Amino acid sequence: MAREIEVVSNKQVIFKNYVTGFPKESDMNVTTSEVELTVPEDCRNGVLVKNLYLSCDPYMRSRMRNIPSDDPNFSPFLTGSPVKSLGVCKVVDSAHSEFKKGDLIWGLTNWEEYTLIKSPEGFFKIQHTDVPLTYYTGILGMPGMTAYFGFYDICSPKKGERVYISAASGAVGQLVGQFAKLSGCYVVGSAGSKEKVELLKNKFGFDEAFNYKEEPDFDSALKRYFPEGIDIYFENVGGKMLDAVLLNMRVNGRIAACGMISQYNLENPEGVHNLMTIVYKRILIKGFVVVDYFNQYSKFLDFMLPKIKEGTITYVEDIAEGLENAPAALVGLFSGRNVGKQVVAVAHDGGIRK
Amino acid sequence: MAREIEVVSNKQVIFKNYVTGFPKESDMNVTTSEVELTVPEDCRNGVLVKNLYLSCDPYMRSRMRNIPSDDPNFSPFLTGSPVKSLGVCKVVDSAHSEFKKGDLIWGLTNWEEYTLIKSPEGFFKIQHTDVPLTYYTGILGMPGMTAYFGFYDICSPKKGERVYISAASGAVGQLVGQFAKLSGCYVVGSAGSKEKVELLKNKFGFDEAFNYKEEPDFDSALKRYFPEGIDIYFENVGGKMLDAVLLNMRVNGRIAACGMISQYNLENPEGVHNLMTIVYKRILIKGFVVVDYFNQYSKFLDFMLPKIKEGTITYVEDIAEGLENAPAALVGLFSGRNVGKQVVAVAHDGGIRK
Repeated sequence: MAREIEVVSNKQVIFKNYVTGFPKESDMNVTTSEVELTVPEDCRNGVLVKNLYLSCDPYMRSRMRNIPSDDPNFSPFLTGSPVKSLGVCKVVDSAHSEFKKGDLIWGLTNWEEYTLIKSPEGFFKIQHTDVPLTYYTGILGMPGMTAYFGFYDICSPKKGERVYISAASGAVGQLVGQFAKLSGCYVVGSAGSKEKVELLKNKFGFDEAFNYKEEPDFDSALKRYFPEGIDIYFENVGGKMLDAVLLNMRVNGRIAACGMISQYNLENPEGVHNLMTIVYKRILIKGFVVVDYFNQYSKFLDFMLPKIKEGTITYVEDIAEGLENAPAALVGLFSGRNVGKQVVAVAHDGGIRK
Repeated sequence: MAREIEVVSNKQVIFKNYVTGFPKESDMNVTTSEVELTVPEDCRNGVLVKNLYLSCDPYMRSRMRNIPSDDPNFSPFLTGSPVKSLGVCKVVDSAHSEFKKGDLIWGLTNWEEYTLIKSPEGFFKIQHTDVPLTYYTGILGMPGMTAYFGFYDICSPKKGERVYISAASGAVGQLVGQFAKLSGCYVVGSAGSKEKVELLKNKFGFDEAFNYKEEPDFDSALKRYFPEGIDIYFENVGGKMLDAVLLNMRVNGRIAACGMISQYNLENPEGVHNLMTIVYKRILIKGFVVVDYFNQYSKFLDFMLPKIKEGTITYVEDIAEGLENAPAALVGLFSGRNVGKQVVAVAHDGGIRK
């Protein structure tokens, strides 16, 4: 007896063209196609998922250039195909022995309502559903691991050390600041609006915070907040800010190079001039990409879940409703429109459309 | 009975003025004063030394600026006082219990024939004199330790890795290259003349070497010698070279930031643009200053002395004769006039003038 295959409409966000300068909403198209809600017979290990929550992350800008990369995490999007990002999904149909219908999972998916994942091995199963599911795009997902491993593994914080975080109210920064406070550090963050600065001080417990857009001279600003210098810098922005930070690092300071969002939309990145300080201040700079830590996810969850449930760590999200608002949400990252972790809600129910 | 105090003439190299741009011989004065060959009564722990060999090192440029430093290794020279550097000395008179007349020692001394060292605690006693004494300014002194700890401690070399060394025929670079060969690495060095390139390949056993002055495009040059990229970069020059190296590093590459000689004479250091590669290639950059390793000197000697005696490691020095040639020798470092470690011989005999 032939299987009855249900076909439904599938709204998609299509990547239109490679991008120069700041990405625009018009670099993406929202269209509708159709999808079968069944894993095809020839897709032996596939799963068909309903996408619930999609993640907007700054690193996605690097995939909007047509620059080949050996690293699949940074390889270019395909024009005419959906944008890709991490997301929280519900399994609708499965041909894979480790996933079954109804499972909640997170991993790399497409910007559309339903996606056929041909090799779901990289996905994590969501075991804990007594927290918001959106958290698996943020505090319990890639940004959370970025903050956790970047701060504890690379920065080796010690009590009393002075920590500076740029892009501090973002998906990663807000967590690094809270971790640093848990470690007994003095913590200062910068962000791009008064509202975000208030959030840093009042919601996340940073000791100080400033609006970098109101500081004509980053060096002076840092000297004001760090008269004795910076031990740890969690680098999210690069360029002029990094240059100023280098002038203010303490001997044996550590810089976790997580991202450099100020540079992503420049065809010619800014020059950084103060690298000589690396030598005489014995500075460590270490770049990292969080996928290298994905095999330690359960260690991370053991740390993070109790802190969320006890209220020791808090998390602010900025949720855009509907795939049609996804392009604006992604583009908004680069002008700092989002307050907190930017998420796109595709479907809230998590149920299977029927 | 009153002590008879011998007074002798004391040739000196006096630091005349702080320097902008490239240092010139005329920034120093060679003069002659007088000195008592006895530690004064009120100098309870002093030693009076005869300076035999003085070291010319690129870091000395940083002491020719009037920029205060918390770090005594980088504090400005005093105008009107002798230039200071590491040197090999013979004790002429001692009021210190740990040093006695006739001891050979090395440490921070003045550019003059005789120096009263008020606090000789930082000096190392020379126990092994079956090697050239000049070696204690180089392969057995600060540059040797710089190469050893910088390479083994910071670069963590593994067999088969690809190592690039800039300023490779210098006091440090020539040793790093030989260490890298001992570790089973593929080693390429750059230097500033045909003669130096020959030395790298024929004397020090580098796999390849090139004259950076003949390369209009460092990126292309590096791609030619490292088609698969660089695992380890031993950074001695900074600026444009560092920028090109960053484009050619492999994932998980390491950069030991030892110095940036191309930048020392610039009032405005060059901008380095390719720092984004630090993130996605997970690069480690670590600055270091060798004085932090001075407490491990005996470990270093245990490694190095047998290698010198067996001929496993070789060392090329460029010895200027006489204090009157010291200014030219120091200035020559910054145009690359020296071939190998630049030393100034003040007195060869090591004896006490009488």
